[in-house]
Amino acid sequence: PFRVSWDVSVAEKAGYKHFMQKEIHEQPRTVADTITGFSSSKDEKLFEMLKDTDRLYIIACGTSYHAALVGKFWIEKFAKIPVEVDYASEFRYRDRIIDDKTAVLGISQSGETADTRFALLDAKEEGAKTIGLVNVVGSSLSREADYVLYTYCGPEIGVAATKTFTAQLVALLLLALETGIKKGTTTYTDYEKIHEELLHLPSKIEQLLQKDEEIKEIAYRYMNASDFLFLGRNINYPIALEGALKLKEISYIHAEGYPAGEMKHGPIALIDEKMPVVCVIPQDRNYEKMLSNLQEVKARKGKVISVATEGDRQIKELSDEVIYIPKTSDYLYPALTVVPLQMLSYHIATLLGKDVDQPRNLAKTVTVE
Amino acid sequence: PFRVSWDVSVAEKAGYKHFMQKEIHEQPRTVADTITGFSSSKDEKLFEMLKDTDRLYIIACGTSYHAALVGKFWIEKFAKIPVEVDYASEFRYRDRIIDDKTAVLGISQSGETADTRFALLDAKEEGAKTIGLVNVVGSSLSREADYVLYTYCGPEIGVAATKTFTAQLVALLLLALETGIKKGTTTYTDYEKIHEELLHLPSKIEQLLQKDEEIKEIAYRYMNASDFLFLGRNINYPIALEGALKLKEISYIHAEGYPAGEMKHGPIALIDEKMPVVCVIPQDRNYEKMLSNLQEVKARKGKVISVATEGDRQIKELSDEVIYIPKTSDYLYPALTVVPLQMLSYHIATLLGKDVDQPRNLAKTVTVE
Repeated sequence: PFRVSWDVSVAEKAGYKHFMQKEIHEQPRTVADTITGFSSSKDEKLFEMLKDTDRLYIIACGTSYHAALVGKFWIEKFAKIPVEVDYASEFRYRDRIIDDKTAVLGISQSGETADTRFALLDAKEEGAKTIGLVNVVGSSLSREADYVLYTYCGPEIGVAATKTFTAQLVALLLLALETGIKKGTTTYTDYEKIHEELLHLPSKIEQLLQKDEEIKEIAYRYMNASDFLFLGRNINYPIALEGALKLKEISYIHAEGYPAGEMKHGPIALIDEKMPVVCVIPQDRNYEKMLSNLQEVKARKGKVISVATEGDRQIKELSDEVIYIPKTSDYLYPALTVVPLQMLSYHIATLLGKDVDQPRNLAKTVTVE
Repeated sequence: PFRVSWDVSVAEKAGYKHFMQKEIHEQPRTVADTITGFSSSKDEKLFEMLKDTDRLYIIACGTSYHAALVGKFWIEKFAKIPVEVDYASEFRYRDRIIDDKTAVLGISQSGETADTRFALLDAKEEGAKTIGLVNVVGSSLSREADYVLYTYCGPEIGVAATKTFTAQLVALLLLALETGIKKGTTTYTDYEKIHEELLHLPSKIEQLLQKDEEIKEIAYRYMNASDFLFLGRNINYPIALEGALKLKEISYIHAEGYPAGEMKHGPIALIDEKMPVVCVIPQDRNYEKMLSNLQEVKARKGKVISVATEGDRQIKELSDEVIYIPKTSDYLYPALTVVPLQMLSYHIATLLGKDVDQPRNLAKTVTVE
């Protein structure tokens, strides 16, 4: 495959305080490299196989699982393949339905995650076509899968995944679009429009990274909360899950993500004036629905931190804090909305004096079940 | 359909302190009635339709969503239909893949849940066959769906669903078995074995209800915890979610459910000596895996409350508390493991002085989006 050369400095902090911070700031480059890498190492046989697939399982753990949930939207939209996302540890032990038109895509940064590898190998034995999406060239998963896709991020040292998540999103979107074109389920016009937007992602992420001080100040105001909720809808619902996971992993604050529409079926009982609620609310087709969920939170006196689209003034009046992100296509928002959530978690954890690169109880690569 | 006659006293507390408590204790009867009701009102056309279905979506909210997650295991196992479970509020706004071999099953106690109703109607318009699983005869969902299944619980007054959950499980299991027989994907021997076990459920639930004082004492020891985790695997993973939701809804404690295998990919960072972790660990085929997850929790000094099978002695040494449940078939455990979790939540909430029948911010039937 296409190789990106990473010199020795990537394994050092290069002026940043922590690897996690450095990796967050590398995202304009890793996103750009993953776009280039995808185009220059296309495996036509993979798309041929997917044209003929009538069910795709995506299996993963942790942050990669959230990338999978976003990928489902894209693959169903552009490639019209029904996608089921499952935790690798769950998929492995269930009564799976697999036939020769089933494909299984395993996502793992390291390519060594035991749950993902073994689940993929089991499915392969049952006759499924297998695909790996990994960051580490030559990793076990990349050798075990029938087809391989890469993210081009260089080494990720921080235990909490950041740059590999946005790169996984890019790879999944390109996979969906490319399959859609080959299969005839996506028009060239749609493809071009989204691809064009995709090329602007690195500079938009760059703009977001300039908000470091502003996000640090928000972190300072909420660092003592013991619990957080993160809400999103549709393609940004997995981003709410990912924002909550980041905060959990490195700050040990009990944060939980929810699809916003589910809130009134239970979790809204938790909300009072002590509960910060992060609302992922870009101006996409779900904006109005999300807005009404946000108003429900305010009505119960929750503190609202919104991640919203630049120019959205009404959100300012309804929220306690707003972090603006640049405008993009509805389908690309997840790759932007997640960035301020990574930064927010990073700052809360460091302000609390936690070791963000080596959080307690966690390993970067989980090679045991 | 088969009607169960409920006299006026059902709408009163009949000696119980709260409707929720009364409804928990009605489960031996509601489970039995739902078994009888299913057999006496079988709609052969429904099974004919399902024989021909190649993808089933189950959509629901809150507690019904957790019943759907359990149902997926049964329907995939016995009827070999690929099942995708989705939150109704999410399903409605996604790019769904629906054709004339797609069926959509909506689950709603009241049959009036707006998210579920409208999502079902949208799918129907796109050509899907639709099925409703409701408790209230004559409800909107029961009139809007092409086929209807009932739970036979009588009125449920407590906002936190209990008896309708176990009855939904029974209805889903019978649906899976019956479809499996008609389709030839389940043998009569398997069917008989599980059906026989099912007939013992009411008396096993009755035994569990005798543990009221014992569970109240456990509740007393943990009532001041600010956060809880609930862990389970496979068919009992949705029970971990449901246990967490019950506690959230009525005690306002931040409880979260997780598939146990996912813990090491993030949430384990939260665990310390202040965190009670409820482990749903019956002696089924996932026992060993679950046991190793439980040991990880202990290694991080978490307090372990286990729901385990009678006779499992080793669990006693590894846990801080054990609630034993009667032995049953692997496939039936969810209908037993959930009962002590309902009781635990009930007692924690009442000990904390909360209004369990009318928790803050929540409505019994959510007729708005």
